[in-house]
Amino acid sequence: MDTKQHILIIGAGLCGSLLGLRMVQRGYKVTIVEKRPDPRQVHQDAGRSINLAFSDRGMKGIKLVGLEDAVRTLCIPMNGRMIHDPKGNTFFSPYSGRTDEYINSISRSDLNLMLLNEADKFDDLTIHFNLGCKEVDLENATATFKEYTTGDIQTFSGDIVLGTDGAGSSLRKSMYLSKKFLFSFSQEYLGHGYKELSIPPTEGGGYRTEKNALHIWPRGRDMIIALPNLDGSFTVTLFLDYEDAPDSFASLNSPEAITEYFTRQFPDAVAMMPNLIQEFQENPTGPLGTIKCSPWHSFGKTCILGDAAHAIVPFYGQGMNASFEDVVVFDAVLEKYQGDWETVFKEYEKARKKDTDAIADLAVDNFHEMKEHTANPLFQEKRKLETAFEKEYPNEYYSKYSLVTFNEDIGYREAMLRGRAQDKAILSLLSEGALSDDLSLKAKLEKIQQETNDILHDDAIVENL
Amino acid sequence: MDTKQHILIIGAGLCGSLLGLRMVQRGYKVTIVEKRPDPRQVHQDAGRSINLAFSDRGMKGIKLVGLEDAVRTLCIPMNGRMIHDPKGNTFFSPYSGRTDEYINSISRSDLNLMLLNEADKFDDLTIHFNLGCKEVDLENATATFKEYTTGDIQTFSGDIVLGTDGAGSSLRKSMYLSKKFLFSFSQEYLGHGYKELSIPPTEGGGYRTEKNALHIWPRGRDMIIALPNLDGSFTVTLFLDYEDAPDSFASLNSPEAITEYFTRQFPDAVAMMPNLIQEFQENPTGPLGTIKCSPWHSFGKTCILGDAAHAIVPFYGQGMNASFEDVVVFDAVLEKYQGDWETVFKEYEKARKKDTDAIADLAVDNFHEMKEHTANPLFQEKRKLETAFEKEYPNEYYSKYSLVTFNEDIGYREAMLRGRAQDKAILSLLSEGALSDDLSLKAKLEKIQQETNDILHDDAIVENL
Repeated sequence: MDTKQHILIIGAGLCGSLLGLRMVQRGYKVTIVEKRPDPRQVHQDAGRSINLAFSDRGMKGIKLVGLEDAVRTLCIPMNGRMIHDPKGNTFFSPYSGRTDEYINSISRSDLNLMLLNEADKFDDLTIHFNLGCKEVDLENATATFKEYTTGDIQTFSGDIVLGTDGAGSSLRKSMYLSKKFLFSFSQEYLGHGYKELSIPPTEGGGYRTEKNALHIWPRGRDMIIALPNLDGSFTVTLFLDYEDAPDSFASLNSPEAITEYFTRQFPDAVAMMPNLIQEFQENPTGPLGTIKCSPWHSFGKTCILGDAAHAIVPFYGQGMNASFEDVVVFDAVLEKYQGDWETVFKEYEKARKKDTDAIADLAVDNFHEMKEHTANPLFQEKRKLETAFEKEYPNEYYSKYSLVTFNEDIGYREAMLRGRAQDKAILSLLSEGALSDDLSLKAKLEKIQQETNDILHDDAIVENL
Repeated sequence: MDTKQHILIIGAGLCGSLLGLRMVQRGYKVTIVEKRPDPRQVHQDAGRSINLAFSDRGMKGIKLVGLEDAVRTLCIPMNGRMIHDPKGNTFFSPYSGRTDEYINSISRSDLNLMLLNEADKFDDLTIHFNLGCKEVDLENATATFKEYTTGDIQTFSGDIVLGTDGAGSSLRKSMYLSKKFLFSFSQEYLGHGYKELSIPPTEGGGYRTEKNALHIWPRGRDMIIALPNLDGSFTVTLFLDYEDAPDSFASLNSPEAITEYFTRQFPDAVAMMPNLIQEFQENPTGPLGTIKCSPWHSFGKTCILGDAAHAIVPFYGQGMNASFEDVVVFDAVLEKYQGDWETVFKEYEKARKKDTDAIADLAVDNFHEMKEHTANPLFQEKRKLETAFEKEYPNEYYSKYSLVTFNEDIGYREAMLRGRAQDKAILSLLSEGALSDDLSLKAKLEKIQQETNDILHDDAIVENL
C-alpha cells in the first residue's frame, strides 16, 4: 500500500482484538470501538460464559499474530470428557486416542486482555471504550456510537468498516434493515437456556474434582458441564428447558425446587457447590441461539466476522476457535486480493461461509450428543472403538470430534461430511452386530472405512447429479 | 360453544379466504381484513404469479368446505413435464405412471374469487378491503390497520387473531419485534429472481403448444417454465441469477441483450412470445425466498398460517397446497381442543411445522431438479424406471414426486425422508450398473426397495440414538 488505509473495527472482544492486531501488523491504521468499559479498568463478565475451550483452530489465529507462547500459560489441558452418572459414578472418555490431541480451558477475559495489551503496543491502533454502535451507514463506511456514561453521540468513519460486534451485531442489523439488497438471515433458538454456576476451589486452593477434563453430567433432556479455571475453581453451566418439561427454568422457582432438582439429578456436583442456591437465583438465564446470514458484506465497504456473521451454540467448544479461524482465512484472502476490498469480501465469504454453516449445525448436533448420547451404551461402544483406532492407527483414523477439533487443516464442512458418514457407518455396523469380537481391530477399521466410503460415494452421486 | 367467539383474520388471500370460510362454517363470527382492493371491483395481479399448480393436498382443503365440484371447472390438468431442449426438441416426462395422478393449472384470482364469493354468503362473516395491517397487539388480540385511500387508522379486535397475511406478514413481524419471548426466524433468498412473461393464445384462441403439461426449458443455471391458462395463453416464468453469472438480470439490460439471450437459450419459446421485450422490461423482477419461524402463536391469542408462517419457493408447486392443508390440520386440531386456544395453537404447530419445514426444503431441492437435473441422462433414466414401476406396480411404488404431490394422507416430512432415500438408492444402483437390462422390472423394484430400506434403517439408527 502506498498510503495507509484506515480500518474501523466495531467490537473489541476476542475476534475484534485479534483482527485489529493482525490488521495493524499488516500496516493498516486501525481504530477499534467497543461498547463495554476497558476491562483493564472495570471487572465484568459476571454470569457470562467466563471460560472457553481453546483448541487447534483458535491456535492458528494466535500463531498468526505470534502469541502462541503467551497463550499457553493461560491454558488448562482437558484430555477428555469425565461423564458423571446419576449415582455419582464417573467414566472418562478421551477426546482422542492420540495423546497430543486435547482441548484447553481458558479464561475469556485473560485471553482478551492479552490481545488488547498486545494491540495497544502499536501507535497505529487506537481503542475507544464505552461506545455502543447504534447504526452503520453502509455506503459511506460511517458508524454512529452512543457514549454510555454521557449519552453523547459520536461518529467514526473508515475506508472500511469491519463488524466484530458479536451475536447482537449492529452492523449486521444495519444490513438486515437495508432495503437495497436481499439479506438472508436466520436466528434459531433452542428450547433450552443456560445458567452459570460454580464449584469453588478447596480451602487449600486445589481442585475439588479432576482438573484435566471437561466434566459432563448428561441427563437426556438436560445437563450440567464444568470447566476448570486456573484458580482451582470450575465454571459450571446448567442447560435446561425454559418450560414445558418435567424440569425447567420455569419450574425451578424456589430454593426447595432448585435443591430437589440438583440433588436428584447431580448429587455429586451439589456436594461441591456451596453457593448453588444464591448463584442460581442471582445469575441470569441466557438463551442459546444460532445466527446465520448472507451476504456478510455490503457495497465493498463493510464486512462482518466472528459471531456477528455466525453465532453458534457452545456445544462444540468452537465459537471462539471459529472466530479466530475467520481471521486466518480473511488474512489469507486479503493477502491475495489486497487493494480490492469488494473482491476480498466476496472471496472471503465464498471461502468461509460453508465452513461456519457446518460448525453451526455440528454444534447443535453436539448438544444432543452431550446431554443424551454420552450416556448411551451404543454411543459409548462407538467412542471406545474410535479411541482404540486412534491409539493403534494414529495416521489412519480420525473421529468426527478429532476432524472438527484437531484437524485444523481441513475445513469444518469437510470434517462434518466425513465425520457424519463415519458415525453412520460405525453405528450401523455395530447395531447389525457386524463388528463381532472375533474380528481384529484392523479388520474392524477396514470394514468401517469401506462402509464410510460407500456412504460418501452415494451422497456424492446425489450431490453431483 | 355457548356464545359465538369472534375471529379476526388478517389477509383475504387464498389461505385467509379458505380459513375464514371454514371458521364461519364451524359457527364462529369471522371478520377478515385485507390490504388489497376487492378483486370483484378492481383487476390486479399484473406481473404476479397468476397461475398455480393445484393438487391433492389443496383439494383436501377445498373438500373441507364443500367446493370440490366448483374448483374442478377452473382446473387444467397437467400430466407431466414437457422438457424443451436448447434446439427446441421436446421430451415428455409424466408426473406418475398412474394415469389418475396429475396436477392442475389454476388461476389464482379465479380460485380466490370463488372462495370469497362463497364466504360472503354467510351473515356471520364480514370482509373489509383496502386496510393494510401495521401492527398487532399480541397480548390483547387487537390489530391496527391503515386505510389505503384515506390514510385513516382503524383498529379491529377479536377473541383470537389469525394471520394469513402472506410472506410479508405484519402479525409475524409483531412477533419478531416482541421482546417477550424468543422468536426463531429465517428468511433465505436464492441468488435467482423471477419474472413473468407470457405466450398468448393463437388467433383462433387455441394453445400454441401442448396444453396438458407443465413446460420446462432447463438450462442448468437458469430456466423458463410455462403453465396453461383457460383462455389459451400460457403464463411463462423466467428464473435467472440476479448477477454474477454469465447471464443475469443485471446483464439483460437492453432489448438486444434480452433477444440474444432468449434466442440462444429458448428459441422455440421465443417464437411463441411476441411481447417478450415489452413484458421483460415492464414486469417486475421478484425475489425467491423461504421463510420459517417458530413459535407460530403467542399468548394463546394469535396464530399465523399459510405463507405468513412458512413461505416457500414455488418449485414444487406446493405453496398454496400447503396453505390449504394448513387449514385442514388446523381444523382437525380445533375439533379436538376446541375451547382452549393456547392448546389448539401449540398442538397445531407441533403437528404441522415438521411438514412445512420439509416442503420448504423440498421446494429448494426441486429448483435444482427442474433447472438442471431434468436435462441429466442419469436423472432421466431414474424417472423412466420410476414411471414404469408406477405403471406396472401401482400399489407398490411411489416416487418422491408422487409421495409429495399425490399421497395427501402422509405428511410432507415422511414423503421427504422416504423419497430422498429412494432417490439415493436408485441413483446409486444405476450408477453402479446394478440394474442391468437382464433383470426383470420386478427384480429391479425389489433391489431398490431393499436398498431404500437399508438407507432408512441406517438413518434411523443415527436419528434415534
